[in-house]
Amino acid sequence: MKRVFTGITELYTPKERLEQAAFAVQDGRFVWVGAASNLPSEYRSWPRTDLGGRGVVPGLVDAHTHLVYGGDRLGEYLQRARGESYEDILAAGGGIYATVQATHATSEDELYEQARARAHLFLAQGVTTLEIKSGYGLLPEAELKMLRVIRRLGETLPQRVFPTLLAHVIPKGWARGEYLEMFCQELIPEVARTGLAGAVDVFCDQGAFTLGEARKILEAALSHGLKIKLHAEQIAHTGATRLAAELGALSADHLEQSTPEDWQALAQRGTIGTVLPGAAVILRKPFPNVRAMWDAGVRVAIATDHNPGSSPLFSPWLGMQLAISLGRLSAEEALIAHTENAALALGRADLGRVEVGAVADFVVLDSRRALEGLYRWGHCPLWGVFVGGVNNPAG
Amino acid sequence: MKRVFTGITELYTPKERLEQAAFAVQDGRFVWVGAASNLPSEYRSWPRTDLGGRGVVPGLVDAHTHLVYGGDRLGEYLQRARGESYEDILAAGGGIYATVQATHATSEDELYEQARARAHLFLAQGVTTLEIKSGYGLLPEAELKMLRVIRRLGETLPQRVFPTLLAHVIPKGWARGEYLEMFCQELIPEVARTGLAGAVDVFCDQGAFTLGEARKILEAALSHGLKIKLHAEQIAHTGATRLAAELGALSADHLEQSTPEDWQALAQRGTIGTVLPGAAVILRKPFPNVRAMWDAGVRVAIATDHNPGSSPLFSPWLGMQLAISLGRLSAEEALIAHTENAALALGRADLGRVEVGAVADFVVLDSRRALEGLYRWGHCPLWGVFVGGVNNPAG
Ligand SMILES: [Zn+2]
Ligand SMILES: [Zn+2]
Repeated sequence: MKRVFTGITELYTPKERLEQAAFAVQDGRFVWVGAASNLPSEYRSWPRTDLGGRGVVPGLVDAHTHLVYGGDRLGEYLQRARGESYEDILAAGGGIYATVQATHATSEDELYEQARARAHLFLAQGVTTLEIKSGYGLLPEAELKMLRVIRRLGETLPQRVFPTLLAHVIPKGWARGEYLEMFCQELIPEVARTGLAGAVDVFCDQGAFTLGEARKILEAALSHGLKIKLHAEQIAHTGATRLAAELGALSADHLEQSTPEDWQALAQRGTIGTVLPGAAVILRKPFPNVRAMWDAGVRVAIATDHNPGSSPLFSPWLGMQLAISLGRLSAEEALIAHTENAALALGRADLGRVEVGAVADFVVLDSRRALEGLYRWGHCPLWGVFVGGVNNPAG
Repeated sequence: MKRVFTGITELYTPKERLEQAAFAVQDGRFVWVGAASNLPSEYRSWPRTDLGGRGVVPGLVDAHTHLVYGGDRLGEYLQRARGESYEDILAAGGGIYATVQATHATSEDELYEQARARAHLFLAQGVTTLEIKSGYGLLPEAELKMLRVIRRLGETLPQRVFPTLLAHVIPKGWARGEYLEMFCQELIPEVARTGLAGAVDVFCDQGAFTLGEARKILEAALSHGLKIKLHAEQIAHTGATRLAAELGALSADHLEQSTPEDWQALAQRGTIGTVLPGAAVILRKPFPNVRAMWDAGVRVAIATDHNPGSSPLFSPWLGMQLAISLGRLSAEEALIAHTENAALALGRADLGRVEVGAVADFVVLDSRRALEGLYRWGHCPLWGVFVGGVNNPAG
């Protein structure tokens, strides 16, 4: 497949801004990007799509989601809005545990159908790459059920899907040591053997796993050749961010309670700091100091953290807008954080960019301006969403 | 026209919550509301619409918008995201003045078409009543041009439209006294005579009108039988909120810098306090202390403040969600604030409610739960939007 795209009034690659741009795509990757007036003669005979003078940005990468789950938590959302705390609801056996129960009660086919519908909403908003975590199974067979759903999503969705095994909380009725041993000795080896996940993540926080437990799980993951990530410093400051840097994790995610020392560790090791504006705002937590992190040299990513409890957020645009308004990023920085940097949080330098060699995923705005989607709050003005150079009409 | 609506799993009126509800509509107004099992026999023979077990809330009322304008301010949005201040941009002749210039340069027909398209986006999100302000004309003929556009919108939109004459800023080249005299002696009488606006509003703030000037304008409005409103305490604390209460304004709007004394004045007089979450968040201002206002007895309304500068917000749901997360309202309170209380900010007790005698504007969620639209951030799951009992299919 060969095609040239022209009629691009403004393109963010995302780091560079080009006017009157064009690019050529062959077999799903960009083979040329530049000013339309410089299009080399070899591409002039290729089939051509005129994008009508619109703005273009790279396909959005959502590097932290919990898109597969049974039930929802609207009732808990209303309770929290009335002032009850997330921590108290979790400690009382609600919160994550409520979703675990609902996920157990939902068939594999039904989990797949519900997640597929959500993924289509994300596609319509320009998300061409999705990381999806397990973690609402807890028990080994239920975790594997979730990972099979995620594999099936990856096989059938237009989007690129990155599956992650998540150690979320200790299931009721298990001793901590017993669960940890099962997770490290059985689940991780099985997942590595079958290829059901490419990475392992741990919710290291008050009410979930301790720093020492997180280290054991992540070391087991590394010993089986899996990549690692961490839920770090969301509710309490635990030191998880520095553990992520020490072990060479792809990313440390959340960071509401993170400190300048944490940012320094991330910057030095090149570990991505992923902020989750939905969870911070919806749980009424302090908004992560994204401006200071960025200025400290952290490569910052933004993700939706989509999940039925702390972040029922369906819009990457709103995540970027909150990072601009409450985290004081510029619009250009927010775009980098949801494309190029988010792809690095998945270990991929060939996603989230419009450049030669990168995968040809891109979003066409229904506007001459590439950043129109960041300006319009609560309205997503997309014209098309291309995955590997092929359009999935938005909406 | 007579019709009974059944199949309502959950209804917020908004103050009451009914399960398995029904209502009867005659000539655009509710004539009966209650539990479906109690539907009186006289309505059983009426034509019936089964809403399929969905949730229903009153039509949303947006009591503060600047929906008519030429151009946009995406460039200024990007500048502000990089750290430039709204106040500095305004003082340098940008901001509102940029939109004034663009509005002057746009024909009456084109202003109408652009605003109509925006109003349709609002309708698809459940907004059945819109207040729309002038204020980007400044010069008398340009203000009248805006008000004619608003009148035409009111005549042609499915929504109910409330037009307001806004004293926004002093136009370049005018002495303050000269402009004030024109506004009070010519514009207000002309608007009162022709019925082009039902209320007068003043932007009383640093860089706009002083408290003394606001008083003169509002007293002129009152003397011509017009209702009054105020943009109050957005950038600086000026005392405008207490002026609004003193003069019996319908509402004091913004309130980012308001104090407990201001809230007491509003509560005592029954003047609505309208918060504008879009402007507060997008301009990175302190979020108004909505929880404390509510608890102090203020009847709080929420509005989008839709405008191309400080609040390019297209979603009332997002406004309510920000008021929940950052202003600490409950979801039920936020709904009251964008329906019943917002209608009171327009002087109407028969809008924004599902009760006998009220206008039959209501929103049907694509969910069994009436508050689903507050739970899903960045995704507006509506099934239908009814104005006077007639559906305008959403989306
Ligand atoms: Zn998470
Ligand atoms: Zn306003």
